[in-house]
Amino acid sequence: MSGRLAVIGLGPGDPRYLTAEAAGALVEADALYGYGPYLDRVPIRAHQERHPSDNREEAARAGEALRHAAAGGRVAVVSGGDPGVFAMAAAICEQIETGPDAWRALDVVVIPGITAMLAVAAQIGAPLGHDFCALSLSDNLKPWPLIERRLDAAARAGFVIALYNPVSRARPWQFGNAIERLRRELPPATPVVFGRAVGRPDERVEVTTLGAADATPAGTVAVDMATLVIVGTRETRTIVRPGLPPLVYTPRTTAEASI
Amino acid sequence: MSGRLAVIGLGPGDPRYLTAEAAGALVEADALYGYGPYLDRVPIRAHQERHPSDNREEAARAGEALRHAAAGGRVAVVSGGDPGVFAMAAAICEQIETGPDAWRALDVVVIPGITAMLAVAAQIGAPLGHDFCALSLSDNLKPWPLIERRLDAAARAGFVIALYNPVSRARPWQFGNAIERLRRELPPATPVVFGRAVGRPDERVEVTTLGAADATPAGTVAVDMATLVIVGTRETRTIVRPGLPPLVYTPRTTAEASI
Repeated sequence: MSGRLAVIGLGPGDPRYLTAEAAGALVEADALYGYGPYLDRVPIRAHQERHPSDNREEAARAGEALRHAAAGGRVAVVSGGDPGVFAMAAAICEQIETGPDAWRALDVVVIPGITAMLAVAAQIGAPLGHDFCALSLSDNLKPWPLIERRLDAAARAGFVIALYNPVSRARPWQFGNAIERLRRELPPATPVVFGRAVGRPDERVEVTTLGAADATPAGTVAVDMATLVIVGTRETRTIVRPGLPPLVYTPRTTAEASI
Repeated sequence: MSGRLAVIGLGPGDPRYLTAEAAGALVEADALYGYGPYLDRVPIRAHQERHPSDNREEAARAGEALRHAAAGGRVAVVSGGDPGVFAMAAAICEQIETGPDAWRALDVVVIPGITAMLAVAAQIGAPLGHDFCALSLSDNLKPWPLIERRLDAAARAGFVIALYNPVSRARPWQFGNAIERLRRELPPATPVVFGRAVGRPDERVEVTTLGAADATPAGTVAVDMATLVIVGTRETRTIVRPGLPPLVYTPRTTAEASI
């Protein structure tokens, strides 16, 4: 007997971001796996097992969930945001590729969710309105020089840059280094958006500029693990509105033939 | 009296992708604006005006919706996918910036949705599992040489590439040119995913390789306006599964220090 494994995107931390498909899949599961704080967002249901685990335990969590599904369970693995963006869907695929043959026969579905950059962008206007990229600043899984090369390439080519995992206790200097690097390629007036805990009660979205974005704890904007940063291009604009937060957007049109 | 303007992401063409927030905002509106086929997805409600318009009329549509909201209406502008990704949110911001002062005082909210690349990725595994970019191949709003430079930069830097608007009747050669260009930077075995009409009855998701991706109408995979294409990196993998579609994913980890 073989079960089913659903990798479910919860979106940012508020039920309003949940899709109908994700809500349905959460109800159908008889076991839930996930990083503790994400699992805590799912309402408790009788007869539904819960298996919270720690951050950074993605591979072990994926293996456990796959074993459970292969034994016939209807298993859900929950992710914040979208499971395919720096989250559990790739970890599940890695385990399937290297695991027992039976795992390749499993019914695996991935259910998309609102990823952080879309939620933060929506809160402030349309900063991702033109070509853009998503880059994780974590050098746990890739070498820092590669991240630097990607930052340089993206800024030079005129992509808006969404930075995931900008900083953590174990990675205190990476974000500051990235900002320094981007300052070499982009003007100081380039808009930068900091979105923290979007969809949660302590949500904060702030707009600053590349010149003023200070990465130190004493800086104007505090950045942490729950922050998503969007760095604009030379064409990104800020609309000041009296009595309302500004709107930041990147125009759909560019006449710029050379950068 | 001033109304409200909500720019709402419907996600791909199936109600299962709709978020709770988007569903609520659709009910609250007393007038709907949007590209006809997107409006057709919204259930008819009594006392709710509908203003369908043509593709490529984004600026005029945005202006009309803003005028309506400024006159006190509760107006919703609907977008397929996410309104902030090659869609209506930037068009609304453009109109606000250049329009009458009163538009800056309007209550404008953007409600995110599942954008095509997240839906297509979810259908096939986790091809966006590492750093990635989103690039529109339409040269209606930017010069083609700039698109070529972005393709080169993204491929060289190791970003997975999601291609929006790969082809249209008025733009028959651009996609073939882009594939040719990417073949100079990436090996022929690089996985390429074609997702057509995801979430609609005629949905089709196919996996091929950069070497085999043929852009001509007589080619193996037909690409049209409703297609989203994901081009992997050197590290993207395809898991063959007996009796099931393959899984395509990009590992979270890379040891690649130089590209």
